[in-house]
Amino acid sequence: MTNQAPPDHIEDRDLDTVARTADAAARALAATAPAARAAALVAAADALAANADELVALAMDETGLAEARLRGELKRTAVQLRLFADTIVDGAYLDARIDPADPEFALGPRPDLRSANEPIGPVLNFAAGNFPFAFSVAGGDTAAALAAGNPVVVKAHPGHPRLSERTARIAAAALEDAGLPPGTLQLIEGQERGAAMLRHPLIKAASFTGSVRAGRLLADIAAARPAPIPFYGELGSVNPVFATPGAIAARSAAFVSGLVASVSGSAGQLCTKPGLVFLPAGHGLDAALAAAAAEVEEHRMLDPRIAGGYRDRREAILGTPGVRTVAEGTVRTDADGQGWVRPTIAAVGLGDLRAGLDALLDECFGPLAILVETPDGAGYAELLDELFEGSLTVAVHRTEDEDVAPLVRAAARRAGRVLFDGWPTGVAVTPAMQHGGPWPATTSGGTSVGTAAIARFVRAVAYQNAPASLLPPPLRDDNPWGVPQRIAPAGESAAWGERAAK
Amino acid sequence: MTNQAPPDHIEDRDLDTVARTADAAARALAATAPAARAAALVAAADALAANADELVALAMDETGLAEARLRGELKRTAVQLRLFADTIVDGAYLDARIDPADPEFALGPRPDLRSANEPIGPVLNFAAGNFPFAFSVAGGDTAAALAAGNPVVVKAHPGHPRLSERTARIAAAALEDAGLPPGTLQLIEGQERGAAMLRHPLIKAASFTGSVRAGRLLADIAAARPAPIPFYGELGSVNPVFATPGAIAARSAAFVSGLVASVSGSAGQLCTKPGLVFLPAGHGLDAALAAAAAEVEEHRMLDPRIAGGYRDRREAILGTPGVRTVAEGTVRTDADGQGWVRPTIAAVGLGDLRAGLDALLDECFGPLAILVETPDGAGYAELLDELFEGSLTVAVHRTEDEDVAPLVRAAARRAGRVLFDGWPTGVAVTPAMQHGGPWPATTSGGTSVGTAAIARFVRAVAYQNAPASLLPPPLRDDNPWGVPQRIAPAGESAAWGERAAK
Repeated sequence: MTNQAPPDHIEDRDLDTVARTADAAARALAATAPAARAAALVAAADALAANADELVALAMDETGLAEARLRGELKRTAVQLRLFADTIVDGAYLDARIDPADPEFALGPRPDLRSANEPIGPVLNFAAGNFPFAFSVAGGDTAAALAAGNPVVVKAHPGHPRLSERTARIAAAALEDAGLPPGTLQLIEGQERGAAMLRHPLIKAASFTGSVRAGRLLADIAAARPAPIPFYGELGSVNPVFATPGAIAARSAAFVSGLVASVSGSAGQLCTKPGLVFLPAGHGLDAALAAAAAEVEEHRMLDPRIAGGYRDRREAILGTPGVRTVAEGTVRTDADGQGWVRPTIAAVGLGDLRAGLDALLDECFGPLAILVETPDGAGYAELLDELFEGSLTVAVHRTEDEDVAPLVRAAARRAGRVLFDGWPTGVAVTPAMQHGGPWPATTSGGTSVGTAAIARFVRAVAYQNAPASLLPPPLRDDNPWGVPQRIAPAGESAAWGERAAK
Repeated sequence: MTNQAPPDHIEDRDLDTVARTADAAARALAATAPAARAAALVAAADALAANADELVALAMDETGLAEARLRGELKRTAVQLRLFADTIVDGAYLDARIDPADPEFALGPRPDLRSANEPIGPVLNFAAGNFPFAFSVAGGDTAAALAAGNPVVVKAHPGHPRLSERTARIAAAALEDAGLPPGTLQLIEGQERGAAMLRHPLIKAASFTGSVRAGRLLADIAAARPAPIPFYGELGSVNPVFATPGAIAARSAAFVSGLVASVSGSAGQLCTKPGLVFLPAGHGLDAALAAAAAEVEEHRMLDPRIAGGYRDRREAILGTPGVRTVAEGTVRTDADGQGWVRPTIAAVGLGDLRAGLDALLDECFGPLAILVETPDGAGYAELLDELFEGSLTVAVHRTEDEDVAPLVRAAARRAGRVLFDGWPTGVAVTPAMQHGGPWPATTSGGTSVGTAAIARFVRAVAYQNAPASLLPPPLRDDNPWGVPQRIAPAGESAAWGERAAK
């Protein structure tokens, strides 16, 4: 397939125009210096912040999320854009490598070889419903793809259409006013159109945040293209928590309040909500949990469809044989058809969990957690191996005199983030954050939060014996962008392996 | 799917045992220090070198490749193992990142967050037929996966079964004698068994070098698993060459000898063989090319099936309307059914190329190149965009006073390596090498040659508020392995974006 061939499957001419506009923007963007893109990202952050009142009001109306949460999320979105501006000015993400020519190379004369990351091409970003700012139009995936030098086509989430359009207008205008090409950020709507765009040959990578079902469907489309592309989906996660007898004994009050807050925040509509909590049978926390859960204010769910799904999942869980209700919680439908909830805590023994695995182990999107009561609060490492495939997080609550090393090793095999004596919700946006894990946490590895997220939207290109005038700036000896360059000096190949052999 | 669930599709109990052995080895390997793995890699390199005479003789018999080529390839294979030993002792591949706790963080108090790459898990490596050492049992993919701390199951290539078994025995014994766990390197045989193993839930990544047809089949299997895994296939490549009028005028003799050598080396059975050579019509090189091609010694092809495929492709190309034969070459079948060849050079005008695209544009695995004669030796950038999707390499032959900048930019969009005034065969094994490119050059990005290849077999894991005793060594403050650590100091978030805004 080439640029000239007609993309037959795209019946919608508008979509083809969007893709071709993105492709043209990709060529212009690939030639921009990081400093110019960084300034544009900061301009977009400033523009979003300047319109915070309007945007937050729209978001409250369309999602039912609380004002404080949304203001914080918008701030996070702006900070993310600034963080990526810093990341590209720094330039470490380019992974610039220079191997000067080496006539004494171990395998015969080595040419001058230099490689650095370049933009992957137009990125299609499927926005999430539960983070109308931070994982939506101008969210983390968009920021990472733009920072890397790629135009982005966002497929708007149907849960906040007006907010999506407004955000796109503000951000796209700021980017273009700062000098980036037209079409750097475009918006499309509709499930069918999103799937059609995913098949467009000019789209070179895609990102997604949402359910396992939708994510798998889209991942399969990306993999089945005549030319497959990377599909970075952040899907479901159960986020198991393992609490030792010592942790429960030493910190039961903090454990109860922390768990209820983490389960109920944003009505439990977070990919890092703790879903299964392993703790020793006879923990004695029922009354405290029920009391704490009853004190949580009623919260609206994102939309009636999600509320309906939660209602069904909750009923199925509470109706599974062997499941005890610790805190019943509430689910109420208002006159507009919106669902309002208070958190539910259930409990089950290990035997009944194993018997009801299908009903209990899948992610429940909403404010519900299941306590799994184990005979002695032990054997957690084996349980993790037995029950879980991949998860965004595993949390370990323990005391210093308990040996949890085997559990930590098992957790690292199954999760992208292992956390201690804390709760998985509240994902820090930092260089070391890893928000991704083995299937079904993510589809293609990588992280969708933090600066390492940029790595998903670049590909390395090597230049062999290139004259300086034809080298990209990060690979030139005069290093005009001042980026880190890893240089493999001539002559070193003779010593390869010697350090190891000693 | 969990470890306990029976893998129903694996009817072959032996395969299941191999997978479980690899899984057990993965746990032990993940706990090894880089220095220990590095010493084992060097031991494997030494063992292969010590058995060079026997291994090269076996390879000559099974593949028909020349002794000098095979001795060089075995040396490369040993050097690769040493290079990866150095890479893991250095530790930069771990990408260790440390974000100390930061109470003043822009988005509220930041926990202590530390991330580093960890092994991805058991890797299935489909060996190639055209590099019986360097892309086979103990080749680059195996070395990269082992270096990262993963056990490897190699699916032997049917073209060199005895060599595969012998290499596996020698390398596996060396690795185990050096202290790595049993099952660190295992061998399986058979196409069906390879495909079945690719579906095994305990296999966590796969690599492949071979044809587009076989690679796509396997990539689709990997993508369709209940839990999809990354499949790193290095498939076909046409490796276009673009020569300007100036380059032909200035260096015609070197161009002719270089082209014929690159097309005919190893009987053209290299993934980097130049397939299409764009040059100005009226180049006047026919006689010199025919003479140079006729001087090349007859070379056996790898096996009768590949020779048959080459014979068919060659006939189809030479029979395409508008194609002129510049150097006819030869294809002969000996008494054992083996094919013997001398290089063929064809030529076609741009119009006839476009008319016969399907017949001419696919990779031809064997010693054949097609000259594409363009009216004025110009418009190359547009031709690259029009005709090619992805390629391992693009070569540019030019002189200093010709502007090839647009061609170089187009080449970087389509290829993993852009080379100047040289030939794509002869891939240097170095830190900056990029051997991979957009589909169909590779399936999932990354490189299969050079130290960056290790990145395909790791995944990042973050630790949040972990006590020092539970942190992996590369993330500890005392840094016992002495690896590079990227530290994001507390307090810096307030300044994010400021550099860019100035």
